[in-house]
Amino acid sequence: MPQPRPPKRATVHDIAAAAGVSRGTVSRVLNGGYVSAEARAAIEAAITEVGYVPNTAARALKMRRSEAVAFVALEPHSLFLDDPNIGAIMLGANAALSLADHQMVSLVVESTRDMERVARYLSGGFVDGAIVVSARAHDPIIRVISDLRLPAAFVGHPPDLSRTIPYVGIDNAGSAREITSRLVATGRRRIGMIAAALDRDSGLDRLNGFRSAVGDAFDEDLVAEVPHYDYGSGVKGMRLLLEREPAIDGVFAASDAIAAGALETLREAGRSVPTDVGIVGFDDSTWAVRTQPQLSTVRQPAKELGAVAAQLILRQLRGEQLETAGQLLPTPVVWRDSA
Amino acid sequence: MPQPRPPKRATVHDIAAAAGVSRGTVSRVLNGGYVSAEARAAIEAAITEVGYVPNTAARALKMRRSEAVAFVALEPHSLFLDDPNIGAIMLGANAALSLADHQMVSLVVESTRDMERVARYLSGGFVDGAIVVSARAHDPIIRVISDLRLPAAFVGHPPDLSRTIPYVGIDNAGSAREITSRLVATGRRRIGMIAAALDRDSGLDRLNGFRSAVGDAFDEDLVAEVPHYDYGSGVKGMRLLLEREPAIDGVFAASDAIAAGALETLREAGRSVPTDVGIVGFDDSTWAVRTQPQLSTVRQPAKELGAVAAQLILRQLRGEQLETAGQLLPTPVVWRDSA
Repeated sequence: MPQPRPPKRATVHDIAAAAGVSRGTVSRVLNGGYVSAEARAAIEAAITEVGYVPNTAARALKMRRSEAVAFVALEPHSLFLDDPNIGAIMLGANAALSLADHQMVSLVVESTRDMERVARYLSGGFVDGAIVVSARAHDPIIRVISDLRLPAAFVGHPPDLSRTIPYVGIDNAGSAREITSRLVATGRRRIGMIAAALDRDSGLDRLNGFRSAVGDAFDEDLVAEVPHYDYGSGVKGMRLLLEREPAIDGVFAASDAIAAGALETLREAGRSVPTDVGIVGFDDSTWAVRTQPQLSTVRQPAKELGAVAAQLILRQLRGEQLETAGQLLPTPVVWRDSA
Repeated sequence: MPQPRPPKRATVHDIAAAAGVSRGTVSRVLNGGYVSAEARAAIEAAITEVGYVPNTAARALKMRRSEAVAFVALEPHSLFLDDPNIGAIMLGANAALSLADHQMVSLVVESTRDMERVARYLSGGFVDGAIVVSARAHDPIIRVISDLRLPAAFVGHPPDLSRTIPYVGIDNAGSAREITSRLVATGRRRIGMIAAALDRDSGLDRLNGFRSAVGDAFDEDLVAEVPHYDYGSGVKGMRLLLEREPAIDGVFAASDAIAAGALETLREAGRSVPTDVGIVGFDDSTWAVRTQPQLSTVRQPAKELGAVAAQLILRQLRGEQLETAGQLLPTPVVWRDSA
């Protein structure tokens, strides 16, 4: 049986009552002032008895600093279960904030209700800044950040905002073009794409890069649109492509998780990879080395993205004026066996 | 080029300066008191100009409530990248807290530095309670929770603490015994285990369940100890078992991620599953349906664990006296193709 535990923290008042002294006397002890040896002993005993701990949050608020930074990933919740990138970005940000003795608080946005409550939380003084992953220009959180002038950094950059809020990202279009080009160069003729998250710049840019690499051979029937960067979307997308074009011989999957789902569908359909169909992914996440065959993909530097976003916040908190709005990190192509 | 953004929030003082009135006059407007129409107009214009937002955190602290609850998973960081269970527990807790209008803040503990800072954060008044996953009796966070009498709930229960802090968990020993028994019943003779996280009750209990199911056939050479519940540990553990006992024909993997790594090692070694070796996992996470063959496993109700832990916190915040220290949720066995 658990002890009933009081939902309220012990206060100076509780110490004073337990010690039989005034609150002023307690405050003097807590602030290092003079009191009689007898009163000090009674107060120290009372502090232990009532379980008093100084309230850092109250002190932080007086200083107008919480030393906490929010991490908000505006991606569907399934990615917390499926996409190692979100976790890696989060760990990269946490490590950088930790070195500067800032507490990262990760906030889940899975519903409209979450979105509104998180916006209130961000505006409530609980955090000094916010790292926002995969923001879209119309997300309510963006308005809160702008209205509050809350120091913020985006991972990825909604086009409308990149001039006012600093960001760190990758060249999605260029990377997609590069990896698709090599599918073309290795002789694939009917190349499709499983395109995800077209409501985000990352998704749109990857599709644009694909389109530019295939050039005149672009055929919109060979683009399967799926909602998310997850395995299930890969299964569905590959089924669509096989229905529409049984002779498909190359696929650019917009993420490694999608590529893994597509590989499973090809296996079930009796297609050999890379002999019959070459497939490339995006991310170089843990998925890439656990498929058979292992994935050729674009390495997304997830931990570094998180670390740079954290630095962008810390620099704003130090009052630095940032020189450039955004920066793009390099994304090397990694060739393995799937294409 | 981003605008230089002030690291401090606008205050009543800033409004007063911009409006050319006293702070007292501003406070009267903010608190709905009487001021002249002219002063009110000037103050309302100033509020917009300086971007003032009322500080909920300060108000919450005056009320001694933050309406925020911490979520702390004391597992190695690799699990954030690898184990869908942690994410599912987190989402289950978030959904339940969200319904009660509480903000869940997830805190990463990846280093000693993190552990100490998180302990300070928990003691700082920023949260009203804490959900702690995979605590061990000696974790410093436990002492903070006890000293503060912070409303807390464990997912999983360190033996020493289960009488004072409420928990929700599963019957790890019973579930492990049940799934191993069916390996025995289907005629496997040389059954091994890849045992992880033996510094936690979950890991120890699963090993004890395994031992009890194999009975006299228990052979400690057939237990490969690995550090974590992740894929890489499965690869290493299975290699060890194959070296020690080439005739091994059954394996209980302490998690589905471990089972997935073991399957890959068996494939490389030319062993067919389930014909040569039967293998069972634990969790019924997304891993279980993405392996070839799909995994027979124990379903861990991850979202429900998170939701019940959240309820345990909310009940304490309402001042309820909890009737029982802990509760165990059911864990059905799911039979698929791997054994």
